[in-house]
Amino acid sequence: MTSNQNTPLLLIPGPTPVPDQVLKAINTQPLPHRSAEFSAILNDAIDNLKWLAETQNDCFIFTGSGTLAMEASIVNFINPGDSVLALNIGVFSERLAQIAQGITDNVITLKAESGCAIELDQVELALSQNKNIKAVLITHNETSTAVMQNLPALAKICQKHNALTIVDAITSFAASPVLITEWGLDVVITGSQKALMLPPGLSIIFVSKRAWEYVGKNKNPKFYLDLNKYKKSMLNKTTPFTPNVSLIAGLNVALKLIAENGKEATYDRHLKLRKLVRSLSQKYDFELLVEDESIASPSVTAFKAADRITVSDLRSNLKNNHNIIIADGQNDLKGKIFRVGHMGYMFEADILRLDKALGQILA
Amino acid sequence: MTSNQNTPLLLIPGPTPVPDQVLKAINTQPLPHRSAEFSAILNDAIDNLKWLAETQNDCFIFTGSGTLAMEASIVNFINPGDSVLALNIGVFSERLAQIAQGITDNVITLKAESGCAIELDQVELALSQNKNIKAVLITHNETSTAVMQNLPALAKICQKHNALTIVDAITSFAASPVLITEWGLDVVITGSQKALMLPPGLSIIFVSKRAWEYVGKNKNPKFYLDLNKYKKSMLNKTTPFTPNVSLIAGLNVALKLIAENGKEATYDRHLKLRKLVRSLSQKYDFELLVEDESIASPSVTAFKAADRITVSDLRSNLKNNHNIIIADGQNDLKGKIFRVGHMGYMFEADILRLDKALGQILA
Repeated sequence: MTSNQNTPLLLIPGPTPVPDQVLKAINTQPLPHRSAEFSAILNDAIDNLKWLAETQNDCFIFTGSGTLAMEASIVNFINPGDSVLALNIGVFSERLAQIAQGITDNVITLKAESGCAIELDQVELALSQNKNIKAVLITHNETSTAVMQNLPALAKICQKHNALTIVDAITSFAASPVLITEWGLDVVITGSQKALMLPPGLSIIFVSKRAWEYVGKNKNPKFYLDLNKYKKSMLNKTTPFTPNVSLIAGLNVALKLIAENGKEATYDRHLKLRKLVRSLSQKYDFELLVEDESIASPSVTAFKAADRITVSDLRSNLKNNHNIIIADGQNDLKGKIFRVGHMGYMFEADILRLDKALGQILA
Repeated sequence: MTSNQNTPLLLIPGPTPVPDQVLKAINTQPLPHRSAEFSAILNDAIDNLKWLAETQNDCFIFTGSGTLAMEASIVNFINPGDSVLALNIGVFSERLAQIAQGITDNVITLKAESGCAIELDQVELALSQNKNIKAVLITHNETSTAVMQNLPALAKICQKHNALTIVDAITSFAASPVLITEWGLDVVITGSQKALMLPPGLSIIFVSKRAWEYVGKNKNPKFYLDLNKYKKSMLNKTTPFTPNVSLIAGLNVALKLIAENGKEATYDRHLKLRKLVRSLSQKYDFELLVEDESIASPSVTAFKAADRITVSDLRSNLKNNHNIIIADGQNDLKGKIFRVGHMGYMFEADILRLDKALGQILA
């Protein structure tokens, strides 16, 4: 894989640049979704996703954004009255909690300061004190604060307390290991327009055997997100509703690219990009929001705004004069931080392009 | 517009062939969904959809299949306990009823025989006898049976009885007039992979002022499909969740093509294609499932199977020897009928290709 030739350069936490080979696979007449040809593509996509997640858990593809899969990860498993522990480290983990609050009144929240992860001890304590907690909502990688949590350690605590792990891995999947079986994760979701190097429009859910027991007992009204329908259709290698056949064809090409380059090499590249992006902090004197590298996201890095240039001016300058798009902070952090995405089809040359642009702007 | 050069020829009720100009618009690096550039595209798409539906009612685009919009058309408006009248003329109208049954126990169903519409008198009677019916679920064009109902007449009866009209126009929209304001329709949905000439992945909802009053009183748990979120986001010309930016860019190109050719000319072309396809009935001695032309779909035509060739053999032969895909019947009608889609980017030459192939197969 080589760096992006196309402009503008999307250094945002999604959508991310799409490789030409993937665009080419998407850019065809749609296949009939009930054809043997499409069934083969769908089956390959599921197998490839399981290969990447190193699991034999069930896997389904939704036609819809990441938030659709977030809702699926709650509405199929949580009943009214259930107790849920939400680990709130930013905008997207808050969204997961909000979805749960729509179903049950018993959502207990642990909240971290911006740029911090939830302490493992806090989770252990909360689960010890609340014996009836059924599930823990975990955002693996929180793009609003550029924090990646210690998912295997969190999962271990959940298992000890017999709580289901519901994991938003939308922006970690394919950028960093998400070892579903080894770590014992129950429900894991991801989306297309992040490190999977596709345009937006698909989201994905993995479901463990243990989690299926909860689906059976679930009574929430749902139709498009009813996992039973997807499971039944997959017996015939198909989907219950017309899927985005084009993006699923592209997904296979993207996963093939990852396989060709190697999983480990892909994860290493993300760590190298993280290091390179974080080095810009010293070079241009912007504080990192996440000082502790052990919880620093491999897919996005957040810098605190400095007095000498507003986030708004920095972003405009980068966009108008250098054709580089970076992200503002979200909600309370708007104007207070800027975020550089470095996930998916992203290479050293892309970050050097940002480096050069920052040098010119801040000279 | 000219006929499809690409093969295989999709003579099915979706996905349908996509014009090259539309594919080209989709086949670009994704735009950042929070950019001014994308906001302009989204705004244009909404304006263009309102132009096509001849309405100023609110319009929102979902990233998801048509069934997602079907669920949105129920879950935002119908509360547990509400009385709903469902007009069941086939698989897709039954699906709409099933979604409603997930929310309320009070779904009254009128069922037509395969290939028939619901009689207007029956609807009038049902609404007279059940004064508390809040909404009527209407499938404008039912692809499983190739029936198009008299939507303006049905809407008039609903208005008389002060019942909300919830209309699935997935396979009529852009193939036939759907005059939302003139006919007084409340909730109308459609999807991308039909006469809108796009790949699957987007669905659309229109909401009348009257229908909004029901949204305000609605308490069903919902997140991705919560219309209040879409309405709030549209004030800033954006979407609450990452949309399929590529397909929305393609949608504008498709709607521009329709505008260039003219709405009326587009609807006329569909009627001419219907006439041409129906003429194959006599020529090749297959009975039409819908004998009454006044309720014959302008976008799909169903033929009864004849003894001399099974539906399965006919479809295989068309596919393997002529690169033409037609559809089997669904559920109870599987093997008993075959269906020819003629919606969207479809022309006389395409039907003549089918005609020629049928001639060879049945000779």
